Amino acid sequence: MEEIGFIGLGKMGVPIAHNLLKAGYALRVYNRSPEKARELVALGARQVYTPGETATPGGVVLSIVADDAALNGVVTAQDAQLARKLAPAGVHVSLSTVAPQTSANISRIHQQHGSTLVAAPVFGRPPAAAAAELVVCMAGPAAARQRVQSILRALGPHIFEYGDDPQVANVVKLTGNFLITAAIEALGEGLALAAKHGIDPVELARMFTQTMFACSVYRNYATIIAERQYTPPGFALVLGLKDLNLILQTGAAARAPLPLASLLRDRYLAALAKGRDDLDWSAIALNAAEDAGLK
Amino acid sequence: MEEIGFIGLGKMGVPIAHNLLKAGYALRVYNRSPEKARELVALGARQVYTPGETATPGGVVLSIVADDAALNGVVTAQDAQLARKLAPAGVHVSLSTVAPQTSANISRIHQQHGSTLVAAPVFGRPPAAAAAELVVCMAGPAAARQRVQSILRALGPHIFEYGDDPQVANVVKLTGNFLITAAIEALGEGLALAAKHGIDPVELARMFTQTMFACSVYRNYATIIAERQYTPPGFALVLGLKDLNLILQTGAAARAPLPLASLLRDRYLAALAKGRDDLDWSAIALNAAEDAGLK
Amino acid sequence: MEEIGFIGLGKMGVPIAHNLLKAGYALRVYNRSPEKARELVALGARQVYTPGETATPGGVVLSIVADDAALNGVVTAQDAQLARKLAPAGVHVSLSTVAPQTSANISRIHQQHGSTLVAAPVFGRPPAAAAAELVVCMAGPAAARQRVQSILRALGPHIFEYGDDPQVANVVKLTGNFLITAAIEALGEGLALAAKHGIDPVELARMFTQTMFACSVYRNYATIIAERQYTPPGFALVLGLKDLNLILQTGAAARAPLPLASLLRDRYLAALAKGRDDLDWSAIALNAAEDAGLK
Amino acid sequence: MEEIGFIGLGKMGVPIAHNLLKAGYALRVYNRSPEKARELVALGARQVYTPGETATPGGVVLSIVADDAALNGVVTAQDAQLARKLAPAGVHVSLSTVAPQTSANISRIHQQHGSTLVAAPVFGRPPAAAAAELVVCMAGPAAARQRVQSILRALGPHIFEYGDDPQVANVVKLTGNFLITAAIEALGEGLALAAKHGIDPVELARMFTQTMFACSVYRNYATIIAERQYTPPGFALVLGLKDLNLILQTGAAARAPLPLASLLRDRYLAALAKGRDDLDWSAIALNAAEDAGLK
Repeated sequence: MEEIGFIGLGKMGVPIAHNLLKAGYALRVYNRSPEKARELVALGARQVYTPGETATPGGVVLSIVADDAALNGVVTAQDAQLARKLAPAGVHVSLSTVAPQTSANISRIHQQHGSTLVAAPVFGRPPAAAAAELVVCMAGPAAARQRVQSILRALGPHIFEYGDDPQVANVVKLTGNFLITAAIEALGEGLALAAKHGIDPVELARMFTQTMFACSVYRNYATIIAERQYTPPGFALVLGLKDLNLILQTGAAARAPLPLASLLRDRYLAALAKGRDDLDWSAIALNAAEDAGLK
Repeated sequence: MEEIGFIGLGKMGVPIAHNLLKAGYALRVYNRSPEKARELVALGARQVYTPGETATPGGVVLSIVADDAALNGVVTAQDAQLARKLAPAGVHVSLSTVAPQTSANISRIHQQHGSTLVAAPVFGRPPAAAAAELVVCMAGPAAARQRVQSILRALGPHIFEYGDDPQVANVVKLTGNFLITAAIEALGEGLALAAKHGIDPVELARMFTQTMFACSVYRNYATIIAERQYTPPGFALVLGLKDLNLILQTGAAARAPLPLASLLRDRYLAALAKGRDDLDWSAIALNAAEDAGLK
Repeated sequence: MEEIGFIGLGKMGVPIAHNLLKAGYALRVYNRSPEKARELVALGARQVYTPGETATPGGVVLSIVADDAALNGVVTAQDAQLARKLAPAGVHVSLSTVAPQTSANISRIHQQHGSTLVAAPVFGRPPAAAAAELVVCMAGPAAARQRVQSILRALGPHIFEYGDDPQVANVVKLTGNFLITAAIEALGEGLALAAKHGIDPVELARMFTQTMFACSVYRNYATIIAERQYTPPGFALVLGLKDLNLILQTGAAARAPLPLASLLRDRYLAALAKGRDDLDWSAIALNAAEDAGLK
Repeated sequence: MEEIGFIGLGKMGVPIAHNLLKAGYALRVYNRSPEKARELVALGARQVYTPGETATPGGVVLSIVADDAALNGVVTAQDAQLARKLAPAGVHVSLSTVAPQTSANISRIHQQHGSTLVAAPVFGRPPAAAAAELVVCMAGPAAARQRVQSILRALGPHIFEYGDDPQVANVVKLTGNFLITAAIEALGEGLALAAKHGIDPVELARMFTQTMFACSVYRNYATIIAERQYTPPGFALVLGLKDLNLILQTGAAARAPLPLASLLRDRYLAALAKGRDDLDWSAIALNAAEDAGLK
């Protein structure tokens, strides 16, 4: 089967790369800190040392990196080798959560060099990545989307497509992350209210997630918040602030005020001011508990 | 089978009474506007004309009314006949969404007259009531809870118990309503953000409710909001404000600030200032859309 | 000169009563805790032991009490003796900060008994009361207003009139208190922001209050907040919550959402949850400082 | 007397330049759109056509431009000619409201080329600029501050100094603008509340600004808001959003959550979504009025 490139071996990248190997793809892997590639090399991946080397003409490269700056770095490294080496007709599938504007800029660079960007951000935490249960939201030129669809099936059973403009997929992803953090805040306030009235948050969380809120987001976060299991983080709190900033910028670009997102951003700042950088991003729920005088 | 009393024949009361008849209970029904009893009388219910007449010594009366004032009226009508006529050992099961403090007051009146209050507020909209799929959250003295459990099974498959103090069940119910309205606001802002970027809200709602948010609250409200189907209301917007006020009072009583609940209350006020009293309570989502300049 | 009644000898009442004595009025004083009258009795006031005894037919009684319940108590005590004994044509001048609805109710009681309510809430803290520098906002039937104007001149140089309906004066007072607490929150956030960047809040407060904000509210509170001098309280924090609740109720009655007032109410709850009942109401500024990780 | 450079002939720049001429300084003026210089040239100013030409070795250049991008443009134009031509020992006095980080960056460029940046943002609207009543907040190396002090006295009687680090002056300025916009929002909500209860906002504004709020910010904005005189703008609404973004970024950089600033930012976005770009920045007060159903 085809050999594809893979950039970014963090908490999400490693299990995704695993699943690609398991699905039969050969991999050329790159990570800024090269030692993170060891485990995948042991499983047969070939390690390369620049982003550009992950690419072949007409091939496919997947990337999943921490933020907009990292993604810009990958694409513009060594004068856009990645975009150039994919040409003609190769596809860069960007799985990262970044600003729509970043996708638009990177898409233009690819076009200029004869390759294509597909934005395909994913929903799901590391255990979902490992279980091949990620939800993929994909947008980009139709031919490129078709080219990469079978590959993305290795990530999870759900692939949703949003047309030819890559940045639309990023808006979808940010909207989803907004809904998730809103649910976290609601659970934080709600469980604090109940706790102040002597109700066991663990039991209450169980009731809600067995009935009206019997879905993965609430199951994950109601449990974490009720049990205060904020470490190790599935997604670090400091990245939550990054996402809220992206959401608010995306709102501002469209002149859409999002007061709940503003409240969430302030919650992230307060949590960081208290030194909670390394807790799970759901630890913003501690703000409501503390403001209510709990503990 | 046993004959029980039933007070309150509104949008929720009628289908619940139906299900009790279907389950084999004989009913004495009371409603402030007596003509609403006609349909149930046709099915075999016996109509009475005061709350007190629904009661028999040692019997059970269920009530579901619009708000705290209505519930107070039912219990104190004709000098607390309801509480007195249930004695000895009868049980009043209050299904309404009211303040915990109201339950505490009414519970005391029942105790003074030799009967017992069980608070058993329910989650679910009229179609769920008709389908016998309500979620019941019950609290009150253990013997009374045991006395009424088989009756409540006619309302839905889920009965959760929260100990001997009736008002705890009301806190649980208000916490749940808070989570639901928070989800409504999040969907309102999120779908407005996406719509401003050209994304079809109906499709987006479908994606979210097939994946991370595959639960009844999101399925109900994402659809309503995406399609702007706010009429006829399943639960009137003006009652949403009532609930938010109860939530905030319950927070204040425990000194628990709930900034998201405050935001929601302001959304209800803005919707009412625009004359939306009779739309569904999820029509607060129009605020986010309008503030973003949509339509 | 005329003998007038005076009810309520708290932090504001005592200096106001002093100034009335100084202006030449004889006083019949009443306070729930009678020992607080001692100082005024020493200066010539006559002490009475029920609210009703402060009144004479056609006379004037001023009251300044802690909240709506206390004011209701004063007027309805001993079956409305106060209202009855003022008749015919006597005037009750209510200086307290209460809900407009409370004024409306009390006004009706007075009317029924042949006397009149003038609402005349005052702006200013205890030192301003002592210095006869209060600002009086008065509303009520024109004849009654004219009857009491010379008396009120003993409280301060500024008397503003708002027509015949007493509750309008209460709306004005609550609007003013809202503006003051909004300024407190703004100063709390602004000085926290500056402090986190190494700027001395005392110096910064001095600059602002010498230039754009050279007015009494900012001078008072910028200093208190910059120096964290929250005790002894000029106005207790727990009364701040009372006022915010009144403001929000008054907004809700008119369907006017007030998101800044909602934010302020949450600040009061968080401060009370941390046990700050007895600090000055400007101590809500500690919330912003703590959320920013200061101290 | 000395000849100094002046960059930026907008609504604030023109009256400031006038006052410098009036104070006896010769001016070399630059503006991106050169026709704006005509009026000043008629009064004796010498027009130049690049930012660099405003500078002489050891001289002083004042700049006041619209935003961070414009200021960066001025300093980096033609490869930093401005910074280079001021060397040795010349001073660039930046009057603009920009991010502290922008001042830090520009200060470094000046240092590298042998000149110095003093940040000296000003408070006051165009009429205050014309009346030489601006408030100047200055920070930068001590020698440079001393060098320019007599020049800045032409802008207004109040000069406050904040030490050697230029960006501190920008924090002070942003804190002040935050306080002003907070006052605008408070007035917007308060006057809407009063209007809904039938109180004339113009009269109410007069009362407040004659008593507790007798200071320039409240006098300016209470009048504008009460009379809805949002055009012509003294400071355009779209610049208000720019400032709120700077305030929130400055807060985030120090991990200081500013929930009131977040609320204000959402108000600006909602006003812009409704197409109010060209109204005065105080027109965010229309949000509260509309949410309350006024007009």
